[in-house]
Amino acid sequence: MRLRKVKLAEEIISGSNYILKDILNYKGKYNNLFGNNNPIHVELGMGKGNFIINNALRYPNINFIGIEKYDSVLVRAIQKLEGVNLPNLRLIQMDAVDINNVFSNEIDCLYLNFSDPWPKKRHINRRLTSEVFLKKYDSLFKKSKRIVMKTDNRHFFEFSLKSLINHGYKINNLSLNLYDDDLSLNIPTEYEMKFVAKGMIIYYIEVIK
Amino acid sequence: MRLRKVKLAEEIISGSNYILKDILNYKGKYNNLFGNNNPIHVELGMGKGNFIINNALRYPNINFIGIEKYDSVLVRAIQKLEGVNLPNLRLIQMDAVDINNVFSNEIDCLYLNFSDPWPKKRHINRRLTSEVFLKKYDSLFKKSKRIVMKTDNRHFFEFSLKSLINHGYKINNLSLNLYDDDLSLNIPTEYEMKFVAKGMIIYYIEVIK
Repeated sequence: MRLRKVKLAEEIISGSNYILKDILNYKGKYNNLFGNNNPIHVELGMGKGNFIINNALRYPNINFIGIEKYDSVLVRAIQKLEGVNLPNLRLIQMDAVDINNVFSNEIDCLYLNFSDPWPKKRHINRRLTSEVFLKKYDSLFKKSKRIVMKTDNRHFFEFSLKSLINHGYKINNLSLNLYDDDLSLNIPTEYEMKFVAKGMIIYYIEVIK
Repeated sequence: MRLRKVKLAEEIISGSNYILKDILNYKGKYNNLFGNNNPIHVELGMGKGNFIINNALRYPNINFIGIEKYDSVLVRAIQKLEGVNLPNLRLIQMDAVDINNVFSNEIDCLYLNFSDPWPKKRHINRRLTSEVFLKKYDSLFKKSKRIVMKTDNRHFFEFSLKSLINHGYKINNLSLNLYDDDLSLNIPTEYEMKFVAKGMIIYYIEVIK
């Protein structure tokens, strides 16, 4: 049963036109892929896709690329996209650790939504806002670097704030209780909706350098 | 009645040995005043004094200076100090705006505890973490600059974070819910104890540059 389910997910994923194949071929050439010079926004760990899909719908003049490692959630995003035509959206299945193989000096904004907090100290380098990853991100951006993150995990947010600032980023926007502020521009993720329903605080930050 | 009370407070304040008179005389010479070369920590807006007095008791090898504008709270601090001998503590009555008249290249740490958040935009320059004040603080410090703040006011904390980072400070320590973290080194203010009793979140940050 389990194997069959996994096989089915794999088939659905590989059969989707949103999924990029031969992902090493587009490095530095995403503008060609999209056929325009619009800004490129990337979500690292897009999960079930609510955030990136709704962004692509709302902002047709921005190109969005969602990255996800796991079949089990990626397949949900692809199912949401059945019958939907979004020329400004592509999805890539890969591990975040390999991001420098895929992009080079071409993205404008990076989203990190409800990333795994990896709470244990020995896993610190797996956190997507660790120094290790921030160094990787530096060469992804076209000009100015912009990272936008949301999380429900206070300690991960505190760690990320320190890490981003120590890496030279400045704070452009910040909310220590997003759902108590103006939400008119907020697009929630699936996790976010669950956490908010439980009354949990959502932390938000947008940094630039 | 009101006048009598005010008069009484003034008498108590001016009669205290902790209160510095001729406050313009010590600029650049606080080490002489204390008779040692210990670090100097200043609390701007010390209110009723619980924080600075307990710091002075706990850390005899640090010199503490509490600054407060208002008679009504300063008198409470002085009453707490009756019969207490703390050679490493002095108090100054003045407005924070005049701080550059009083210190020059001699302090090691500045505490801003539960400062007035001045929520209206037109009062932004009165906030003790505004660019206006951060520029004033720059010339107070001996070598490295260290500011430690606590507040219950989320929007003021968000503003302060941005302002401090944009002024070049890095985050040394941060808690977005101080009373949910290790409190072993925390010394509360009077405000803080009230707010915590009400279940309010206390934000904490220590920055250096």
